[in-house]
Amino acid sequence: MNTQRIQQVKSIMEKENLDAIVCRLPENVLFLSGHWPLLGWSFLVFPLEGLPVCIIPHCDEKEALEELWDADCISFLFAVLDAGNPYEEIAKHLKTVCGKKNWKHIGYEGNFENIAPPWNTAEPAIPADTTRSLLYEVFGEDTLIDVTSVLNSMRACKTLYEIEKIRTVNEIATFGLKTFFENVEPGVSGYELAAEIEYSVVIQGTGYKGSKRVRGFAQVSTGAEETAVGYRPMLISTSRKLESGDLAIVELAVVADGFWSDRTRVRVAGKPSEKQSAVFETVKSTHQAALEKVKAGIAAGEVDEAARAIIRDAGYEEEFLHVTGHGLGFRYHEPVPLICPGSDFVLEAGMIHSVEPGIYLPEIGGIRLEENVVVTEDGCEVLGPFNKEFHG
Amino acid sequence: MNTQRIQQVKSIMEKENLDAIVCRLPENVLFLSGHWPLLGWSFLVFPLEGLPVCIIPHCDEKEALEELWDADCISFLFAVLDAGNPYEEIAKHLKTVCGKKNWKHIGYEGNFENIAPPWNTAEPAIPADTTRSLLYEVFGEDTLIDVTSVLNSMRACKTLYEIEKIRTVNEIATFGLKTFFENVEPGVSGYELAAEIEYSVVIQGTGYKGSKRVRGFAQVSTGAEETAVGYRPMLISTSRKLESGDLAIVELAVVADGFWSDRTRVRVAGKPSEKQSAVFETVKSTHQAALEKVKAGIAAGEVDEAARAIIRDAGYEEEFLHVTGHGLGFRYHEPVPLICPGSDFVLEAGMIHSVEPGIYLPEIGGIRLEENVVVTEDGCEVLGPFNKEFHG
Repeated sequence: MNTQRIQQVKSIMEKENLDAIVCRLPENVLFLSGHWPLLGWSFLVFPLEGLPVCIIPHCDEKEALEELWDADCISFLFAVLDAGNPYEEIAKHLKTVCGKKNWKHIGYEGNFENIAPPWNTAEPAIPADTTRSLLYEVFGEDTLIDVTSVLNSMRACKTLYEIEKIRTVNEIATFGLKTFFENVEPGVSGYELAAEIEYSVVIQGTGYKGSKRVRGFAQVSTGAEETAVGYRPMLISTSRKLESGDLAIVELAVVADGFWSDRTRVRVAGKPSEKQSAVFETVKSTHQAALEKVKAGIAAGEVDEAARAIIRDAGYEEEFLHVTGHGLGFRYHEPVPLICPGSDFVLEAGMIHSVEPGIYLPEIGGIRLEENVVVTEDGCEVLGPFNKEFHG
Repeated sequence: MNTQRIQQVKSIMEKENLDAIVCRLPENVLFLSGHWPLLGWSFLVFPLEGLPVCIIPHCDEKEALEELWDADCISFLFAVLDAGNPYEEIAKHLKTVCGKKNWKHIGYEGNFENIAPPWNTAEPAIPADTTRSLLYEVFGEDTLIDVTSVLNSMRACKTLYEIEKIRTVNEIATFGLKTFFENVEPGVSGYELAAEIEYSVVIQGTGYKGSKRVRGFAQVSTGAEETAVGYRPMLISTSRKLESGDLAIVELAVVADGFWSDRTRVRVAGKPSEKQSAVFETVKSTHQAALEKVKAGIAAGEVDEAARAIIRDAGYEEEFLHVTGHGLGFRYHEPVPLICPGSDFVLEAGMIHSVEPGIYLPEIGGIRLEENVVVTEDGCEVLGPFNKEFHG
């Protein structure tokens, strides 16, 4: 039970004049109820007063009842012959639950254009026109307020309960990073490394501190050409085989019971060149400088500058073209906070964000280090600490 | 190049009076252009006359240029410091591409509430309010027509190019099924089997017939209690260990370069009981009967009944509570065709659907067999055929 979160949400709802929030994206259902939906067909009614109600497909009932905090749960038949139209079922239950409340302002998730998948990562269910029409029909168009940015803001500071979950998924991520460290050698390809990493994340992560639903998403690029494109948000792990002296980068997302981590390591196959070592040391110092700058009360832009200044002094300003960090936890990437140049957004204790400076050079490849940290009053905690070295 | 598809789409657009279709869901970009987006930030303009134009983040350019059929490609800076607001970039390019066309009717994907993830499965980008506003602003609200059902209908019959792709992904799926067969034994847990299966899909599937981006999603349930909940669309692979005589079911989705397969096998750990064997034989005969019924010109309901009749005669009608099959290929599940009781929807050559009867009994567990077939003039082809036996 995440009492700290419930209290915070209710206090913000009061301030925003919201009588209730109705959501279906797995990340928001998890955020407000403790249950990570399997399919994306769970609707949560979170009222300012009284208990939340989760309306779920019958096939999600077992996990929902185990996971939900203090909430009512209504299930409807889904994907079996006797099942009705799921939207009609959901509308009927929403009317029953909310019918006599006389709510005037109901928040809904109108504008999440990046989403975390439900456990069924192969086929996310999302709110589009039918969900919108359903909400309009049940609540009336004038009652509904898009609370996407309110939800994003509320999600930025994590509670102790959530920090523990995100610490756990970061610890699970280290199993994947260790596998990466052990397997980078000449002759191995990016997709083979990715498969090994994802395998070890599931095998070692399932059951770790009670984690039940664990999955890794590893992207491994190899060699100068592939790794130098390191400002690219999503890599393809190719069948190119590592050669001696090549760099390999892993970009690793892990989810455990709905909470996400985002980590990066770089390794060299065999012995590094002097230039690789020098650039790596620059990235490592940059990473350390940024970590040392993070604390409650500081502007995000100052953290970014702590990193960027070192890279600038080393002559690589044009080779560090992305932000220094972003929020995360309920999703692989969350928009708050963004650690970027010039930002005067002030970090608060409990915020979790990545720290991920990098330098990408066509001649040697790309080098990036990425950790997830939780902001504290006097600094930050690195979640799931792990060896940062790039060889040996 | 999928000329057959381009011609069909244009002929339907003409009939539907559509000047163009604008889409961003990876499955529809793939369908109309040959390119499977990495992130979900690619917009495709597919006009009735002239070449399609794909507007993509610069980081997707390499793959886009390799994969796109005859189409123009415009890239914009994405997720780097110099990048502008991606929506403004996309709007600008849409205006340039479409500005002087004077199109009156433009189709968009307003209502896909189940989606296939892009290659970045950890964080799908989807069309919500901002995409809708962008399209309204560029094209005017009155010009836009939701073509979700038109796209779903067009996607139902696959072309030779697409059948080859879906055959390939089904062949890759057999690597996972083989791993499942080899590893079901007492002492192994569901999540361990799932991890082994997903690993072998990536390792053996990457490079298979040129496949570049391959991922498996395996759900393995074990024992009577877990497998009997087999009408459940999405299982959790738990840490429960198989005991001698237990059933194990794998529900396996595989994607290769944007094309999907959906397969199921069941195995017994050790020796089956007489009852298990009898129920398995019933499911196998049922599966065979349904396969033999499939051909162009037959109603979907007749195929369903061919399966259901055998299960009914065996006394298990109440234990086969789901449909006999569903479309697939551009997604794990597609709505057309649906092989369900009473349907008079007529199958056509080129349609691809699953055939997946099952019987679920609390005392012994659940047994289901699932193949993907392409409908032909005089029958059907099972894609990626593989051993159906449940022990030995």
